Amino acid sequence: MDKPVRRFGRVVKAPENFLDRELIDEINTQGLDEQRRGFLRRSFLAASAAMAAGGALGQERPAVSGDGDPHILSLPEHSRTLGRPVAAMPYGLPSRYEANLQRRESPGLTRVSAASVAFTPLQGLFGIITPSGLHFERHHQGWHDIDPTGHRLMINGLVRNPKVYTMDDLMRMPSVSRIHFIECGANTAMEWGNVAVPSVQYSHGMLSCSEFTGVPLSVLLEDCGYDKRTARVVLAEGADGSSMTRTIPLDRALDDVIVAWGMNGEMLRPENGYPLRLVVPGIQGVSWVKWLRRIEVGDQPYATKDEAIHYMDAMPDGSYRQYTSIQECKSVITTPSAGQRLLGTGFYNVTGLAWSGRGKVRRVDVSVDGGRNWRTARLETPVLSKALTRFNIDWEWNGAPAVLQSRAIDDTGYVQPKINELRAVRGTRSIYHNNAIQSWQVAASGEVANVQVY
Amino acid sequence: MDKPVRRFGRVVKAPENFLDRELIDEINTQGLDEQRRGFLRRSFLAASAAMAAGGALGQERPAVSGDGDPHILSLPEHSRTLGRPVAAMPYGLPSRYEANLQRRESPGLTRVSAASVAFTPLQGLFGIITPSGLHFERHHQGWHDIDPTGHRLMINGLVRNPKVYTMDDLMRMPSVSRIHFIECGANTAMEWGNVAVPSVQYSHGMLSCSEFTGVPLSVLLEDCGYDKRTARVVLAEGADGSSMTRTIPLDRALDDVIVAWGMNGEMLRPENGYPLRLVVPGIQGVSWVKWLRRIEVGDQPYATKDEAIHYMDAMPDGSYRQYTSIQECKSVITTPSAGQRLLGTGFYNVTGLAWSGRGKVRRVDVSVDGGRNWRTARLETPVLSKALTRFNIDWEWNGAPAVLQSRAIDDTGYVQPKINELRAVRGTRSIYHNNAIQSWQVAASGEVANVQVY
Repeated sequence: MDKPVRRFGRVVKAPENFLDRELIDEINTQGLDEQRRGFLRRSFLAASAAMAAGGALGQERPAVSGDGDPHILSLPEHSRTLGRPVAAMPYGLPSRYEANLQRRESPGLTRVSAASVAFTPLQGLFGIITPSGLHFERHHQGWHDIDPTGHRLMINGLVRNPKVYTMDDLMRMPSVSRIHFIECGANTAMEWGNVAVPSVQYSHGMLSCSEFTGVPLSVLLEDCGYDKRTARVVLAEGADGSSMTRTIPLDRALDDVIVAWGMNGEMLRPENGYPLRLVVPGIQGVSWVKWLRRIEVGDQPYATKDEAIHYMDAMPDGSYRQYTSIQECKSVITTPSAGQRLLGTGFYNVTGLAWSGRGKVRRVDVSVDGGRNWRTARLETPVLSKALTRFNIDWEWNGAPAVLQSRAIDDTGYVQPKINELRAVRGTRSIYHNNAIQSWQVAASGEVANVQVY
Repeated sequence: MDKPVRRFGRVVKAPENFLDRELIDEINTQGLDEQRRGFLRRSFLAASAAMAAGGALGQERPAVSGDGDPHILSLPEHSRTLGRPVAAMPYGLPSRYEANLQRRESPGLTRVSAASVAFTPLQGLFGIITPSGLHFERHHQGWHDIDPTGHRLMINGLVRNPKVYTMDDLMRMPSVSRIHFIECGANTAMEWGNVAVPSVQYSHGMLSCSEFTGVPLSVLLEDCGYDKRTARVVLAEGADGSSMTRTIPLDRALDDVIVAWGMNGEMLRPENGYPLRLVVPGIQGVSWVKWLRRIEVGDQPYATKDEAIHYMDAMPDGSYRQYTSIQECKSVITTPSAGQRLLGTGFYNVTGLAWSGRGKVRRVDVSVDGGRNWRTARLETPVLSKALTRFNIDWEWNGAPAVLQSRAIDDTGYVQPKINELRAVRGTRSIYHNNAIQSWQVAASGEVANVQVY
């Protein structure tokens, strides 16, 4: 276990505390993925080299220290020297002091890292835009960096004119830009049972929010002349090795679905589907098919493996609920959250995220006593449909133990449920679609932990 | 000169065409900044090493090629293989195919690269969020990566309780998150004369837009008990070596100014003021003091060098206009733009950015005939106050020469002026505050160039 890292005001335990990375690596020495760990090592060394190169010019000493020269008084080095030039990094990177803020795999969650998850460190983020470098990853067969000049999108099936589009073709078409959240249907999966995942990165970190740019799918379907009489669904297919295929009802496909190439102002990142992915606002991430290469128009659901067999809700009576794909209204406090430690008594800004796959967040309430009393939080603007909403609320901590919760209400009037309310209907065997209220327990010591008793 | 690079649909000439980077380096061999160029080289090598390491696992071949095995038909390699693992890059980077999209210095603009500009490549971006790695840079004495644990913010002057805040202190306070543009007052400076800058990166690239998070300055001023009877202004001071100090009127300081640590969801980047910068919505970038370390409350403007001597508007009668800091309503078409080349006749999505330092953009009109006829563009939502607004409009190119222009109108009713209207009032000797309509000329060949005759 790592010792807590004081992270100025947000006091984050190094997320390695969940599972000891070095220990895992130790255990894995007999594993076959030497090549992969070699890649990680080289990647880390390259990053270190870049930092060292950056450090060579600045050579900052601690910023508050004084100096031998009495005329300079206590001005830090960086206030007395020429700094680094512009474009020293043609593509900029975070400060070397932020190196601990990473997306992280949860080893052991899956048997192969190419079919696994890397979680977004929500505990260290602000606002609603997720930095693209920290966007969560969930791959079924690993990721590729695909040459966009060779990439194609085919539209076939119940269309008058099947077409194959190049990226050139697509990027000349009418485009839209919209901010939307994406959440994996399995986010917060562990909490169905009584596993109190030790940080919000691992409990809620299959969640990101970006500004996406692309051509509306409706424009492409019109361009190919889809059959208005018989068409009921579209099938989206990705170009990775997982045969990722998902059915989307036609009314949704014609509504707000985007064939996107842009994410947060630039091209999609390779891990997020470069050069093309489907954006299906409000729907679980698995339908946002990455490396999109084909759309087939059909007259009935395709019942592909990733919708008929996987991504089903296990119900308490032993049955399985299929085709539940909307991400219902949900929220979570990101700071303070499990693994962090309060700095002492006094004022805190309690902050978190709320979202709904059905529209806008109308209100977020916050409790510091495990749900007995609630106060309404401030929502940062803009509050957008099917996007993350940032909330903030004041809290004066008196040093006594406390249980922090947030509860979101969307513009349909739906209220985020308690975990026990949800379990009463859905049981405890599920993996998917857990949108329950999350509880963080603050101890008298200031330590914050995940608790499930509320 | 570089030959044009086909960049799928947006056909960008490599921005090096402005000034040949290698040639400049060649010329500079006798220069003294060997250390700096060493840093650049190491930085580049590290990036290349990271890419090579990344490439080692995937080994993609062109995505459309077939394969010797007839059973596999024409499936590309990446559709038949296991890809790279999650968290292969704990902090992700753009695709290797996007390496040409960089912020770039305009060598020769200043004598020292530590007091220069690196421009944002607007011609390759989408939506309104600028990726933090491509945020423009303008430094007066270079940049530093300052240790946040040692950084302090002092508030003094006409206050009852002068205070020194740590980052811990600040990050516990009530915070807000807001999307705002930042534009250098000298953006589009070259166009005052008859220099037709060869790409939108260099003509308009001192412009970025991000979601900022921090504590409102009003909260800090209240916390220190500013003197409501005598206080008229605040002075903001940065911790770099440039003695960057700017006066801000008190009413503005109490309005929407933020002492920010967050940018696009994560901590500020070092080049943009990590760990603390002032966000002064609607006001030219120089007032957004980076590496903010002190706020002094005063009873009259401080007339510091960077406001009394620099950042003045040269008027046609030989006088200088001081203290013009609001960035007036402006817009520019980013694609197609100078240096790009159309792919052939037919449909194009014409897209660009509009903004106003006084509030929201109400409307953007686009002309394809040098301002004789105008059509109203679609504005992407959200349209936010003092933020970039993305516009899109359809255009069917018939192959004839054309002149593209955009004209923004803000919610005060102000209409972006033509360059000759602006010159009639302001002359041609200015550097700052050029918000004129920009003209891009499309030749019959499809080549797009900057023209100033309209």
